[in-house]
Amino acid sequence: MREHVDANSDAVVATVVRVEGSGYRRPGARMVIKLDGDSRGAVTAGCLEDSVVEAARQTIVDGRARVHTYDLRDDDADVWGLGLGCNGVVDILVEPLDASFTAALDALNAKRPVTVLTAVSSRDPAIDIGDRTVLGPDTATTARAPLPDAVTESVRSRLTDAGDGVAVTVDIETAGGDVRVFANHLTPTPDVLLFGSQADVNPVASLAARAGFRVRVATARGARADAERFPAAANVRSTRPNDLDTLVEAPAHTYAVLMSHNFLDDRLALESLLDTDIPHIGVLGPRSRFRELHEAMDRPLDPADDARIAAPCGLDLGGDEPTAIGFSIVSELLAVHNDRDGGRLAEGSGPIHARPEIA
Amino acid sequence: MREHVDANSDAVVATVVRVEGSGYRRPGARMVIKLDGDSRGAVTAGCLEDSVVEAARQTIVDGRARVHTYDLRDDDADVWGLGLGCNGVVDILVEPLDASFTAALDALNAKRPVTVLTAVSSRDPAIDIGDRTVLGPDTATTARAPLPDAVTESVRSRLTDAGDGVAVTVDIETAGGDVRVFANHLTPTPDVLLFGSQADVNPVASLAARAGFRVRVATARGARADAERFPAAANVRSTRPNDLDTLVEAPAHTYAVLMSHNFLDDRLALESLLDTDIPHIGVLGPRSRFRELHEAMDRPLDPADDARIAAPCGLDLGGDEPTAIGFSIVSELLAVHNDRDGGRLAEGSGPIHARPEIA
Repeated sequence: MREHVDANSDAVVATVVRVEGSGYRRPGARMVIKLDGDSRGAVTAGCLEDSVVEAARQTIVDGRARVHTYDLRDDDADVWGLGLGCNGVVDILVEPLDASFTAALDALNAKRPVTVLTAVSSRDPAIDIGDRTVLGPDTATTARAPLPDAVTESVRSRLTDAGDGVAVTVDIETAGGDVRVFANHLTPTPDVLLFGSQADVNPVASLAARAGFRVRVATARGARADAERFPAAANVRSTRPNDLDTLVEAPAHTYAVLMSHNFLDDRLALESLLDTDIPHIGVLGPRSRFRELHEAMDRPLDPADDARIAAPCGLDLGGDEPTAIGFSIVSELLAVHNDRDGGRLAEGSGPIHARPEIA
Repeated sequence: MREHVDANSDAVVATVVRVEGSGYRRPGARMVIKLDGDSRGAVTAGCLEDSVVEAARQTIVDGRARVHTYDLRDDDADVWGLGLGCNGVVDILVEPLDASFTAALDALNAKRPVTVLTAVSSRDPAIDIGDRTVLGPDTATTARAPLPDAVTESVRSRLTDAGDGVAVTVDIETAGGDVRVFANHLTPTPDVLLFGSQADVNPVASLAARAGFRVRVATARGARADAERFPAAANVRSTRPNDLDTLVEAPAHTYAVLMSHNFLDDRLALESLLDTDIPHIGVLGPRSRFRELHEAMDRPLDPADDARIAAPCGLDLGGDEPTAIGFSIVSELLAVHNDRDGGRLAEGSGPIHARPEIA
């Protein structure tokens, strides 16, 4: 998105803003469509994409934001969901990828969360679909008309309890009618900080990058910190284990995995990271090794520390090849990031996706 | 391994045969080392690899199988495991990659499990390290001297209860002394059969291939069965949903995922696969969809069917992007393959790896 905004190139963003019934993707799912039809991301399992690309062409021509509603329900129970991946009504905001995204992209790049408010329907002549206000530490104006302050405040007050990752529509009465606002809380791409320098770092790095994390590798004890040794890493730094905390750039958005295979280094690195507020520190290795490491530590672990240390790290997938261990570790990082516990979905009973509620 | 055997090229196989204490990899872990030092696989996290490559050079020169013992323990508790990834004694069999592997490779290629018995130490002048017998449906001779029948029978009788995936050493008294035999049960590369044709198939296919599965894609309803649409798949077939069972080549070694996004097709495909003995059928989609699918089925599900159907398929990782869904599905396939449940290791209490016991 940043590239397109900077290059001022013709591109369109399609965003799922509302799903009634069941959908393959949830509100907040995004797809970027270029003029040549090339795209990134997805708003469905692949079945609506052609229609969305068609809608994108229209927006590229006239520059207008529109909401398109796709009704994927079918009356014939036998072909329920036929080829469509869902059985619901999906509202998709199709809008130019313009400078109205800059404030949000800047904040995310600086590792600050933001909430983007966008009008997605309006019966108030003073408000157009696409009008946008970005809420963040520094509430920013955008290249589009902002929402009226009263609307922004009204949405803000109703989002208080909704928490992170929220992507909901809120209906607001205005002086001139009413407006539906899509409120989308965006969090920065999380960092995965891998402490280690052996061959087993690479499968974890490449799978974590594949999963969407920004991967950073920290090596110690004079191990080469060559970027080419870890091609999936955004950067590679050499560090002393007890200075590992200085490499944490955005504590709230960093997950660490200690895999130096060195008892002393892992211990010093763990002590160093416990001085930060990072929410997850995985430690590779058997349970008995962590017990010894724990006993050797200079500081006691309080329950809050225990909650953020995963030792042994990883989900219980079995297998001991480096790739299997990579899947185990990265799957746990995804689960932790999404506040899940990794067990089998078939053995649970609730919905697969948490559905955020608003006041 | 097949390529090297067929080309009769100089290469060496290193296999972990025994670990005392804790090791990064378990018995049965393998590494293939070529004359030019290039290698595949791993026997440790990376720290022993240099020594093993050195040992491989010796074996390339004289063609002899040897067992090398590496003691990774350290008396100094402070540097316990220093740079070594484990705290144990590891025995590694280093042997030429010769035609003695052919019988096992042939069986695995034909999707038949085998157990390879190899002498790894001997105080019987009639038995050399590397002597090998392959047990399978058709017990095969190999290019090396076989183990004496009495030894083979003695090992076989003690393996009865050890089950799949076993990789253990067994000490046997012989007429001329005693011998230690490494018994390694090998199972064919499992197939992952993906039923679907939409864009979300690809992340599952590529992650499953990355995880080591042989990936096959089956498309229905005239969807193009072009191999280039699914580059990670070993093959792509078009099928009628109720004929999906005919595409299952090795039922015991096949895991299926139904992700056609078509209610009727998924139902017919499920009914078709239930007629086979495949151990895992994942169904993508929300719980409510599977309930409806279940109700619409022509046959009742018995408890054995329930046990092999995972609906919704996948581990509870959160996230709804195609890649996150791919991680969820493939991680579950790994867990199912290794008979694990996918929960967080830190919340369990047993050893990370099951340790097979012998009689």
